[in-house]
Amino acid sequence: MEQHSNILKYKHLGIYTQNEYVVYMREDCHVCISEGFEALTRIRISKQTHTIVASLNIINSDMLLPNQIGLSDAAAKKLNVSEHETLYVSHLEPIESLGHVRAKIYNQKLDYSAYSEIISDIVEGNYSNIHLSAFITACAGDRMEIDEISNLTKAMIASGKQLNWDKEIVVDKHCIGGLPGNRTTPLVVAIVTAFGLTMPKTSSRAITSPAGTADTMEVLTNVTLSLEEIKNVVENEGGCIVWGGTAQLSPADDVLIKIEKALDIDSEGQLIASVLSKKAAAGSTHVVIDIPVGETAKVRSTEMAQKLKSHMETVGHAVGLNVKVVITDGTQPVGRGIGPALEALDILKVLNNDADAPNDLKERALLLAGELLELSGKVESGMGSQIAKQVLESGKAYKKFLSICKAQGRFSLPVLAPYKEEIKAEKAGILKRIDNRKIAKLAKLSGAPQSKSAGILLNVHLGERIEENQLLYTLYAESKGELNYALEYKNNHNDIITIL
Amino acid sequence: MEQHSNILKYKHLGIYTQNEYVVYMREDCHVCISEGFEALTRIRISKQTHTIVASLNIINSDMLLPNQIGLSDAAAKKLNVSEHETLYVSHLEPIESLGHVRAKIYNQKLDYSAYSEIISDIVEGNYSNIHLSAFITACAGDRMEIDEISNLTKAMIASGKQLNWDKEIVVDKHCIGGLPGNRTTPLVVAIVTAFGLTMPKTSSRAITSPAGTADTMEVLTNVTLSLEEIKNVVENEGGCIVWGGTAQLSPADDVLIKIEKALDIDSEGQLIASVLSKKAAAGSTHVVIDIPVGETAKVRSTEMAQKLKSHMETVGHAVGLNVKVVITDGTQPVGRGIGPALEALDILKVLNNDADAPNDLKERALLLAGELLELSGKVESGMGSQIAKQVLESGKAYKKFLSICKAQGRFSLPVLAPYKEEIKAEKAGILKRIDNRKIAKLAKLSGAPQSKSAGILLNVHLGERIEENQLLYTLYAESKGELNYALEYKNNHNDIITIL
Repeated sequence: MEQHSNILKYKHLGIYTQNEYVVYMREDCHVCISEGFEALTRIRISKQTHTIVASLNIINSDMLLPNQIGLSDAAAKKLNVSEHETLYVSHLEPIESLGHVRAKIYNQKLDYSAYSEIISDIVEGNYSNIHLSAFITACAGDRMEIDEISNLTKAMIASGKQLNWDKEIVVDKHCIGGLPGNRTTPLVVAIVTAFGLTMPKTSSRAITSPAGTADTMEVLTNVTLSLEEIKNVVENEGGCIVWGGTAQLSPADDVLIKIEKALDIDSEGQLIASVLSKKAAAGSTHVVIDIPVGETAKVRSTEMAQKLKSHMETVGHAVGLNVKVVITDGTQPVGRGIGPALEALDILKVLNNDADAPNDLKERALLLAGELLELSGKVESGMGSQIAKQVLESGKAYKKFLSICKAQGRFSLPVLAPYKEEIKAEKAGILKRIDNRKIAKLAKLSGAPQSKSAGILLNVHLGERIEENQLLYTLYAESKGELNYALEYKNNHNDIITIL
Repeated sequence: MEQHSNILKYKHLGIYTQNEYVVYMREDCHVCISEGFEALTRIRISKQTHTIVASLNIINSDMLLPNQIGLSDAAAKKLNVSEHETLYVSHLEPIESLGHVRAKIYNQKLDYSAYSEIISDIVEGNYSNIHLSAFITACAGDRMEIDEISNLTKAMIASGKQLNWDKEIVVDKHCIGGLPGNRTTPLVVAIVTAFGLTMPKTSSRAITSPAGTADTMEVLTNVTLSLEEIKNVVENEGGCIVWGGTAQLSPADDVLIKIEKALDIDSEGQLIASVLSKKAAAGSTHVVIDIPVGETAKVRSTEMAQKLKSHMETVGHAVGLNVKVVITDGTQPVGRGIGPALEALDILKVLNNDADAPNDLKERALLLAGELLELSGKVESGMGSQIAKQVLESGKAYKKFLSICKAQGRFSLPVLAPYKEEIKAEKAGILKRIDNRKIAKLAKLSGAPQSKSAGILLNVHLGERIEENQLLYTLYAESKGELNYALEYKNNHNDIITIL
């Protein structure tokens, strides 16, 4: 093999492509010519023993010299390469696990070893976005049997780090999204850790919603902690609320989620595997899952929720988790804020037992905290909610929450975005319907979750009597462009809030 | 809206990403900041009334100034933008047709208008590769009903130009690939046009094979003709053999095929829609489809072939085509050459009635030309093959072929690649099996079809008595790297040719 001639010098180009690995070479580069590479060819790039796979973009300008090679930022970081270092370029041997993806596309059932090979290749960065999208799509739409979901979950757990807390009981909770503002997690962590349980909570950022728990918590504290730092916080406080991405727990999930976001889908199999693999890898033993059901929530019918509950519990059992699924009302947003900072404000009000704290958010947090207390066996059946309420109203939960935030690095109060627009009722009547998807879309167009203080402050709830010109909600944005874009969407959709 | 502040100056970067539209902007560019854009955001870019959608890559180096914007070559070409021209950047309104793609992912049946919206957006370049891959995957694996395939086909026909030859009968043929070296098309065109039929043949380049008809013909003549040039050739010669890509016939197909190639799949629905939309858009009325069946061909069983035949004929009828499907033997490669130049040599030998012309290729061409002659109604049933043979052996077909090549711009003789390696039998015995997929893979690794003269020259056929050390085939490559890579694959796979 022509090893010696396949060497190029690295030049930093500074092109950020998110997590996709892209390699840049000149059209007239001797390696491209001798190896017959063309644009989008998948190529192996090595530095000593480190190696990655990247898609080729061909440069036909002087951005590179013919003996130079560039990499997208993620690829350069993965290879830890510095300016002028030499990289070795070679043909990519066929990625065998893509054969399993093709089999899945053609409706074949895959076993553990097939999922394991696919997930390993995904974690290694061996799949292009085209491959990832095909894998996600082939697994969506009820195309995975329940034991396939268990096998995918196991493969995802095994693909990353796995935490061990040396505790008999480690609790966790998760909500199957789709309900704007439903930010109970920080409250539940505060309550159950104040009670004395261990709850090392790793959360995701938003997939298709205006805020994930990690996005909201980042307003209040630091959520990007190393594994060592997480361990310290949990040892001292009994719990944490951090972003799961840096902990290298189920790392395939972080890759898949970005593609699901681009497709705006969140399929059952991937969803179960995503949630339960993160929980198991985080060392949890007892997990409560909240499934809100509503016409415009992620889960639209009680039948779908029951099916998901049954699959969640089955897969949980298969991977060694004690899972309890709670089906809740998902007909309207929870709390008042939609967007990271606005949700953070709601959380602080509930913790502080403020008179104007959103009661719906509080009740949900108490229900879920109560279920967790009961599932742990530390509280008698039927008493969970009541004990959770005592812990919250005593102020112990707030105190614990502040301690956790400080242990994570800081406690900051949320600030509101500089641009806002009040949206008022055009007529009087009864508030009949709030479209969760459209109001979430509106919050996203206003900039959430990238713009932390952007979003919606909701002033009304289902069933209320509304007067003409009454304030329905306030739109917040960090730039005029985003505010205008959200307003344009609002003006084109008159069914976000229905008053009859 | 902040129109005036969303203006940037174009700078040519010279980055070729194939057909994906990528836009490059600085991290600290005022538009990114004010609009909240981040990497991979899909963005609308406009120049006066022209507009495209592109994925954002963020530049954090001095490759661009903060007020500059770069585009991938395909995007720059589509917008026809020159250095220093101003471009206007805006948020992308939601692509509505992606809702149909999601519906398809969730197993819903789509109607004509849904496929039509999807295909229009694909032709406009509004889908990222992630979206395209999801659409292809969602339609694969028998997930399309027959009327959906008809609707997809109609949508693809309507999405591009449609030719009209002002002839009552316009014939065409197509082979459902998978059989290396099965290059009958140029022969069939030569025969039936020499007979007097009209056959304006537009072919594709290889999807997953070592050569498509367009790749092979490009060795012999120019295949990239404008619509006007194609019309002239057909008017003067009665036929042509050109690449269909520039003719803007069913343009969505060209986009989808690149993604199918990356996935290495070719699903039934897309395959039927691809083939028949090209034929209908090219103005054909009577079409013969060749489906080779064999264990390692694209279609593996007679049952699958019968199903495909039935679906092809049904969809053909739905889109107004007279389709006849011929099921042929697909157990081994046809002719001797595999790869563009080597296949072109076979074609010339058959046309020239050379003593060592590959007889299997000749017989197949006569069969298919005969079917076309009969389907056209110009030749009595049962007589087609015999008349085709007369036209070929008289030398009229060769003469016509040369005329067509010259009318298309040139006639060039094929040249062989500079690097070669003879592969000999390791033992004596009977040749029991040739793996079409593996021998195609070998030809691809040697560089075909990008390297026109790369590929395989096959010396043996199924059932032959082989002596030890007898030449089985010769590998040809245009670079040592490619030859070595092919040899490495050959050494790791001892079941490419099985002698027992």
